[in-house]
Parts: sequence; C-alpha cells; structure tokens
Amino acid sequence: MTTYQLEVIENTAKKDKPAQDQIPFGQTFTDHMYIMEYQTDKGWHEPKIVPYGPISLDPAAMIFHYGQTVFEGMKAYHTEDGRVLLFRPEKNFERLNLSSERLSIPPIDEDLALEHLKQLIKLEKDWVPKTPGTSLYIRPYIISTDANLAVGPSSTYKYMVILSPVGSYFPGGLQPVVIHVEDKFTRAVKGGTGMAKTAGNYSSGYQAQANAKKEGNADVLWLDGVEKRYIEEVGSMNIFFKIDGEVFTPELNGSILKGITRMSIIELLNSWGIPVTEKRMAIDELYEAYQAGKVEEVFGTGTAAVISPVGELNWQGQKMIINNHEIGELSQKLYDTITGIQTGKVEDTLDWTVEIN
Amino acid sequence: MTTYQLEVIENTAKKDKPAQDQIPFGQTFTDHMYIMEYQTDKGWHEPKIVPYGPISLDPAAMIFHYGQTVFEGMKAYHTEDGRVLLFRPEKNFERLNLSSERLSIPPIDEDLALEHLKQLIKLEKDWVPKTPGTSLYIRPYIISTDANLAVGPSSTYKYMVILSPVGSYFPGGLQPVVIHVEDKFTRAVKGGTGMAKTAGNYSSGYQAQANAKKEGNADVLWLDGVEKRYIEEVGSMNIFFKIDGEVFTPELNGSILKGITRMSIIELLNSWGIPVTEKRMAIDELYEAYQAGKVEEVFGTGTAAVISPVGELNWQGQKMIINNHEIGELSQKLYDTITGIQTGKVEDTLDWTVEIN
Ligand SMILES: Cc1ncc(COP(=O)(O)O)c(C=O)c1O
Ligand SMILES: Cc1ncc(COP(=O)(O)O)c(C=O)c1O
Repeated sequence: MTTYQLEVIENTAKKDKPAQDQIPFGQTFTDHMYIMEYQTDKGWHEPKIVPYGPISLDPAAMIFHYGQTVFEGMKAYHTEDGRVLLFRPEKNFERLNLSSERLSIPPIDEDLALEHLKQLIKLEKDWVPKTPGTSLYIRPYIISTDANLAVGPSSTYKYMVILSPVGSYFPGGLQPVVIHVEDKFTRAVKGGTGMAKTAGNYSSGYQAQANAKKEGNADVLWLDGVEKRYIEEVGSMNIFFKIDGEVFTPELNGSILKGITRMSIIELLNSWGIPVTEKRMAIDELYEAYQAGKVEEVFGTGTAAVISPVGELNWQGQKMIINNHEIGELSQKLYDTITGIQTGKVEDTLDWTVEIN
Repeated sequence: MTTYQLEVIENTAKKDKPAQDQIPFGQTFTDHMYIMEYQTDKGWHEPKIVPYGPISLDPAAMIFHYGQTVFEGMKAYHTEDGRVLLFRPEKNFERLNLSSERLSIPPIDEDLALEHLKQLIKLEKDWVPKTPGTSLYIRPYIISTDANLAVGPSSTYKYMVILSPVGSYFPGGLQPVVIHVEDKFTRAVKGGTGMAKTAGNYSSGYQAQANAKKEGNADVLWLDGVEKRYIEEVGSMNIFFKIDGEVFTPELNGSILKGITRMSIIELLNSWGIPVTEKRMAIDELYEAYQAGKVEEVFGTGTAAVISPVGELNWQGQKMIINNHEIGELSQKLYDTITGIQTGKVEDTLDWTVEIN
C-alpha cells in the first residue's frame, strides 16, 4: 500500500487534566485528535493529528441522513512501572473493517491505523490516567461526508480517533448488576447489521433500556429477533454463563457483536483447560437450569467493564437471582487476570498487549 | 405551548439557480436553512432561518456514534398559476414525532414546525422549480448533539430543514422498474426501528442494493426479517399490487414505514369506490398468483417518484414480468391524479394541499 506521511499539528493551548478517580465516562477529551480523509479517486489520504476541536460538515452530509458510519472502542492502560499498553488493538481494526464492509465503507489499512494510533497516544501519554481501574478510552470512527441526499454509499469519508480518560467502571470493586431480559424490542436480526459496530444499533435500544431502567435494571439482555427466545447479548457486552460446572456463551450467529473481550475470555479459559461451548442458548432453557439450581455464574464481557457479574436476570416477571447477588469465583478470576494483563501486573503469556513507546 | 420568535438572517450572497430540467437529486441546496435547538431545561428554542452553510459539531457529538436521529422527506410544487403547494405536510410532522418517539428524541410542536417551514419556503420561493415534474425537496431532520460517548439519549438536539430543487424523477414519463426480491439481507424486524424514518435503516440496505444493482435491478423489495416470506417495502417506497382486479398492499406491521403516498393512494382509491386490502402478503403466494396470470399491476409509492410502476420482480431466480413491462392503467391514473393535485391541475377534493403565501 501507499505510504502516508502523518502530519502533526500540536495543540499549543493544552487543557487541564481531570481528577483521575472520578472521571465520568466519555465526556472529557484529550488535546489532540486524529483525522484521515477518503475520496474515491485518492483512497484514504492526508492523515493528521490536530488539536481536538469541532468539525465542520455540510448539513446535507450523509452521516446526518442515512447513518453510514462505523466505530470501535478500546483502551490504553498505564502500568505500575510507567509503560502504556494497548489490549489486542489489531483485533479492533480488524473488526472496524468488518463493520465497514457491512456498511459499504472502504476499508482502512489496519497496520497504518495501529501505527498512527500509537503515535497519537504517545503524544497524549500524560492523558493516560494512573489510578487503579482507570484508562484512556479510544474511539476510532468513520463517518460518511458527501453532501448528497440520494440514498447510497458516500464517495467521501472521515476516519477519526478521539481519546477520553475514564475513571474506574466499578469504583468500589466488581459489583453484580441487575439485567432485564427484553422480549418486546429487538436489537438485531439475521441479515441485519447486528454483527457490525454501527451507530444505528445503539440508539435503537434506548427505548428498551429506558423502560428497563425504570424498573431498576441496569441494562437489557437482548433476545433474537425471530423467535424472541435465543439469548444474544447485553447493551455493550457479550454474555457468559456457568451452568452446572460448564461455561457457555451464545454463538456468533451474525446478529451479535464479536466482542474482543469475549474472544479473550474463551482463549484464556481454554489456556486454563476450561472449555467454552459457543451455542444457541434459549432463555426458557436457561430458566429451567436456573430452577434446577444449576446456574452458577452469569457475567457480561466488554471493553468498558471487562467483566460485569450479573446478579439478577428479570424475564417475563420471573426473577433469576444468580449466585445470591454475589461475584462468582470464575468471574473474579477472569476479571483479575485480564485487568492484570492489561495493566502489566499479570504476565502476558498470550501476547495480547502492545506497548506504546 | 410557548411561542417562539423566528429569527431570520438573510443570505446576502445568493447562489445561481441550476437549470431546471436536469437537476440531480439532493445535491443542490437553496440559500437558507432552518435550525432550532433543544436543551433539556429549555425545550426546543431559538428557531432561526440562516444562510445555508456548514454546521460545526464536537467530534464526540452523539449523532456520529450512536445514530440517534430522525428525518422526513416531502416536496413543494409550483402550480401553473404561480402558487406553491405543499402535499399533506402535517402528516410528515406527525410521522417525524412518531419516529422521534421510537428514537427517544423529544417531540417538536407540529404546528410550529409547519408554520416555520412555510416561512422558509416563502423566502426560497424562487428556488421552487417550475418545469413539469420538478419540485423543491424538503428535508427536515433532527440530530443528537451532546459531546458524550456514554450510550444513551442526548440532552441536546438540532432540528434542521434544508431544501433542494429536484428534477423530474421520470424525465421521459413514467418508466417501469426492475426490482430484486431480497431474501438474504434484512431491513427491519418487529420490535426494531423499521416504522421510524431513522438513518440506520437506510445504510443497512446498501449491500443488498449494490448486489441487486449488479444484476440489473433498480432496487430491492424487502421481505420480513422473521420468515423472509412476507412482503414489506422497497428501498424508499411502499408497494401495491393489483391482483385479479383487487388492490392489495402490505399492512402496517411495525416494521415498514407508514408512507404518506401510501395513505393517500388508499384514500384516493376509496374515494373512487375501489377498496384496498391491507394484509400480510407472502411472496410465494404472489408468485402463485403470478403463475396463474392474475398479477395485473405492481407499483411502488413514495414522495420521490409518487408512483413507480414495477415491470419485473426477481425472486430466487424466478422472473415475474408484470403487465408486459408496461405501465398499468391504474398506476397511470393514480400518478396523474396525485401529481395533478400536487401541482394544482386536478381539483383537490380531499383537501390535501397547503398553499404557501
Ligand atoms: C453491542 C456490543 N456487544 C459487545 C461488546 C463487547 O465487545 P468488546 O469486548 O470488543 O468491547 C460491545 C462493545 O464494546 C458492544 O457494543
Ligand atoms: C423506507 C421508506 N418506505 C416508504 C417511503 C414512502 O413514504 P412517503 O410516501 O411518505 O414518501 C419512504 C420514503 O420516503 C421510505 O423511506
């Protein structure tokens, strides 16, 4: 591929950094951002690191009208010995391109994207918080920018990366959550965009999430769009079950996201000699197993929380109390190991981390 | 509701208007646009007509990440006696609010929106093209603008209206189109966002549409997401069938858009004493009726084309040639009547048009 010269325009008006232990998610941004443009005849070109600031778009820009857009989410972590680590970033760029394919967006060069991300984070190194549990959240995304109301793929795009320091997801340590099993609204269906990380998949869940929150749930567990029977995933997390000593997770069926934490947990458990069965899982069968006292642990997995133990599942008026609302042993061990690897405290035997230097 | 003072900032650098008979769809915009802001504590406020031009947004603006957005599409028409007419605009604002409800966006005041739209078009009167078949396309839309990466409804929005003169959809008169019946990709499913006019519904169709175009089809006919059996709608059109002398259209099942042209055609046919049956329609049953020689006319309906006769449906390698690729009598009559009402040539007995003056 062509080589791309990265231009860096440094921000001379640096912002104050927030207090590290209480940063709300996704509202504080660093001093710089990354932008690369796409044009049909030029391909991706003009990669730049510039001061963080507003972007200017034509009001007819396609992103505002037809939602042709994809994004990613990953984190950079500070180690105790002062290094900055990324966690499997190449998997995020691979998934970005998979999402782009579904949305008819031209692929980016994954190696180049990673190389430039490293340079951006190097420049923003002081923004990576150091307090335990904190990290620098990384949001790569692509938006379609043609000023054109004709429905169809854009001929111009912007690929951007913005960075946001985030506090601990569980400030007081891991905390089991209450989840509503959604049987009215649908997130995704076979043949749709469920396996892509694209904007429309998220806002389509707001109504269900608001209803669930009114009844004291933290989020919803989506069921399949066809039979409203098979377990898919939580808002921004995949889901795992320990039932009668065995670990299960819904299979990648085309309508759920291929989570990188999910993938890592399967690989980690396998490395411990614990098999994980990926299969179609019916909610009624889960309930039966629950009634038989066999559901031992349930946990969500995703970049935000890494592991989020589920203490309660509410399904059609039935309450499934999991492990007496306590953190399961396996959940805790997975959390400690993965966050340990991410922050350099546990040896990275699976070669997952990438150092910025 | 509160009254809102509309502020008008006139554009002093007016653009040249394009040649009326060959304006490509959605790429030319008028001199002004409309913007109204929303903030939780203020509600919708500060309505303004300003010179058309770029808008500036934080790169973390929610519209770029989670797709919380809705839009509408309607047209203003020039009559031969120099008036400018809107076609059932109150139905578009009603639908905009329905879409907003699904996307957890606060509703706008429909009367106010119509009143301000009229003022905008009055100011842009010279942009409404006069050549037969042309019109001024109107695009109201709402975007979520909080700079916040936390998944959830925004607390700020922009409601905007942009205007674009458009040439004739069928420059040489009505022209039957070839349509691919899509049985792999899915547009929408019960419990999803199919009934809302929201960005993500459109880009999710690009892959299917590109595949269909490669094989010579103009667009796809979507089937239901559950059984891939029941007929839903075409890209931006609802669909009607005349079978054995009777008129049918898929029922509003929650996953298709409640088209205003669809509604108008049903009302118009009823006023002519022709009943329309809205029901679940299976594609295999359509094919059976086709083989029995009973499918007389098929046409799409929407703001863009009004009536778009379908000359051929391609379904799983089977070709259904409709009415020998010719325009059906009913299709033509509906087209002539509705476009006639829209342009003041046919008496508006159903009270559908709204004059700008
Ligand atoms: C819908 C959805 N499912 C699952 C995940 C978990 O994926 P990962 O482990 O790659 O963060 C995410 C998000 O990040 C998500 O948005
Ligand atoms: C998905 C979809 N279906 C149907 C229609 C037809 O609706 P209307 O007649 O209101 O234009 C449109 C668009 O305009 C549409 O986008």
